[in-house]
Amino acid sequence: MLLSVVNIDGGVTAPLGFTAAGLHVGVKTHDPNKRDVALIAADRECTAAAVYTKNVVKAAPLLVTREHLADGTARAVIVNSGNANACAPNGEENAERMCAATAAALGIDASDIAVASTGVIGQPLPIEKIVSAVPQLVKSLSRNGSGDAADAIMTTDTRRKELALEVTIGGNPVKIGGIAKGSGMIHPNMGTMLCFITTDAAISREMLGTALKSAVRESFNRISVDGDTSTNDMAVVLASGAAGNAEIAALGEDYAAFHDALRALCVQLATEMASDGEGAQHLITCTVSNAETEDKAETIAKSVISSTLFKAAIFGADANWGRVLCAMGYSGAEFDPDAVDVAFKSPAGEISVCAAGRGLPFDEETAKKILTEHDVEVLIDLHEGNARCTCWGCDITYDYIKINGDYRT
Amino acid sequence: MLLSVVNIDGGVTAPLGFTAAGLHVGVKTHDPNKRDVALIAADRECTAAAVYTKNVVKAAPLLVTREHLADGTARAVIVNSGNANACAPNGEENAERMCAATAAALGIDASDIAVASTGVIGQPLPIEKIVSAVPQLVKSLSRNGSGDAADAIMTTDTRRKELALEVTIGGNPVKIGGIAKGSGMIHPNMGTMLCFITTDAAISREMLGTALKSAVRESFNRISVDGDTSTNDMAVVLASGAAGNAEIAALGEDYAAFHDALRALCVQLATEMASDGEGAQHLITCTVSNAETEDKAETIAKSVISSTLFKAAIFGADANWGRVLCAMGYSGAEFDPDAVDVAFKSPAGEISVCAAGRGLPFDEETAKKILTEHDVEVLIDLHEGNARCTCWGCDITYDYIKINGDYRT
Repeated sequence: MLLSVVNIDGGVTAPLGFTAAGLHVGVKTHDPNKRDVALIAADRECTAAAVYTKNVVKAAPLLVTREHLADGTARAVIVNSGNANACAPNGEENAERMCAATAAALGIDASDIAVASTGVIGQPLPIEKIVSAVPQLVKSLSRNGSGDAADAIMTTDTRRKELALEVTIGGNPVKIGGIAKGSGMIHPNMGTMLCFITTDAAISREMLGTALKSAVRESFNRISVDGDTSTNDMAVVLASGAAGNAEIAALGEDYAAFHDALRALCVQLATEMASDGEGAQHLITCTVSNAETEDKAETIAKSVISSTLFKAAIFGADANWGRVLCAMGYSGAEFDPDAVDVAFKSPAGEISVCAAGRGLPFDEETAKKILTEHDVEVLIDLHEGNARCTCWGCDITYDYIKINGDYRT
Repeated sequence: MLLSVVNIDGGVTAPLGFTAAGLHVGVKTHDPNKRDVALIAADRECTAAAVYTKNVVKAAPLLVTREHLADGTARAVIVNSGNANACAPNGEENAERMCAATAAALGIDASDIAVASTGVIGQPLPIEKIVSAVPQLVKSLSRNGSGDAADAIMTTDTRRKELALEVTIGGNPVKIGGIAKGSGMIHPNMGTMLCFITTDAAISREMLGTALKSAVRESFNRISVDGDTSTNDMAVVLASGAAGNAEIAALGEDYAAFHDALRALCVQLATEMASDGEGAQHLITCTVSNAETEDKAETIAKSVISSTLFKAAIFGADANWGRVLCAMGYSGAEFDPDAVDVAFKSPAGEISVCAAGRGLPFDEETAKKILTEHDVEVLIDLHEGNARCTCWGCDITYDYIKINGDYRT
């Protein structure tokens, strides 16, 4: 099937039936210009699905959201940045208060609200600041509020992460929009990342959940910034059904079109996260091809993009492919080291550095030129099968250390 | 049993029956003052045991050593630094040539020699430089050559790692000596570390192997510098039997005394490695207590000392205990987050920062003072059982990035 997906403007408010807003209410105390509370609202009951961090320590808002979405429906998402509301006193109570205030202002049920927080762990949430600002936040909701909402969920992110796509399903144009944040504490199995997705597709709760799980597995679960999987991660999708397509209620062509568009959106947002990793100067894309299985290719690619040593080499534009072999070797996957080819690639060119597990003589200057580009690729060929997988990461830099040496203040 | 172990001088040449040497032969091309080949020789056949990296990509010398030690005996160890002889052309052939040259010069069998390499992966070993220097190396062997040998196995290490202990076994004084290297590519399951241990204990091959495996599990496998497990790791022990104790051939009091002394030596060398981690400014000691099982305590402690974010916080002397909880949570261990206490401790004092999973108000200035010390401890209480485990790591610093951004040149 040929999929036709086009990028459109509007982020989470591109799909029909959604408005959004983002304001500064004072959770971020250092800069009064930084928005810190976001709201996304639907004009009708939506089917909803979510995936959460696998960290045993789960932030309070996540527990509340999981309960509220248990019935597979939702109408709004309220989010604060600047404080994670994790391991903090009265965490669930405060998360519920955020929902209650939002429900009151929107005239909907609190159990139809997803709530999320991101920021420092372990500090009391300034709940009064948030709840007293909710009426103003609701007043600010608009069909072009996605950018403000995207800004309001940022922590150390340097760039807003917002995207919308249009795909044709059963003859109907269907829109999918998303905003995301994530810059540090990012690792496969959901990093400190939040992603809120809206769509006007008509889709059943089950199919929406299946599509989200699959898209997240192939996008957010394939990026790493620093190997730390956070307490607060969550990806939520609301589907309004306003597009008018025949409800997607089973696997088939319509589901595939929706799933592929959703995956495309998630992959794009995930690579933006990796690219904007704390202090990052490079986006590293690692593709393992000709593996026996996709799982094995994924295990190896994740290990390479997660290797601190390899990340430091890319920071230095140093073609130290031995660290690629080393990270492959401790990944846990079985493979024949004597069959492995490795090449580096970027807009400046491509260079083979290892063939059949042995170093090739290569021109260091050409390699340096290739690795100096922002987007660098590591291409690994296992020569053992037909499966492949791509994962994304970033280099580790002085700025990463600086940012994280004194994050709380 | 009360164990009496005293520190003595002499490193690997402290035990009776051993000599050592270290020379510069030109593998390290940048600095003619840096020794790069080490030799440890025994005056008789020794029982020998070794453990190796679990990395699927194994360096050539490791394969050769494994074969040579298969019979449980050895008489010498030859080591070069500056080149890992991993993923390099003619790797095994070159490792065998190192053994053959050493065997010829010592008048012993090549299969009685262990060989190791450490340094850059993937570059051809300058084998001629090494083999042509072997006769000179053998001439330099002496009863006080341990320090030179310890220097000759260093790569980015800033400090020589050398230790000897004396323990009484069955009324006989028994000596155990060790030299080690390791600074980067260090992670539980043997990092890029080498450790060569000698002892004059009389001990059977089986008991020596059992003791080494156990001691390594509780020392080198509990440190992490950067989460990268290298291709070259190896710990080798040679036992000459010259101490004259009744051969330790079974579990019992003698074995326990030997094992505990060996473990004490390995723990000391392991903490020196973590303390001298590439660019490190702090040694981080994490103790998890009152766990259900030692395994669980170990899983959690390893996760904390391996967390890049927590390491960055310690670099910044920032009491960001939320990152401790976070790293515990993604460790894979199940525990009750609402039961966890966390405290920081150093020579400057101790401060509780989290009780029953919730942040405590604490004096930031006191915390900063405690965390500014070189040796900092993280104390975690799970309140669920009686088991405990300690693991060691270091902070991540600007210098780590600098060292590893351009390691090959």
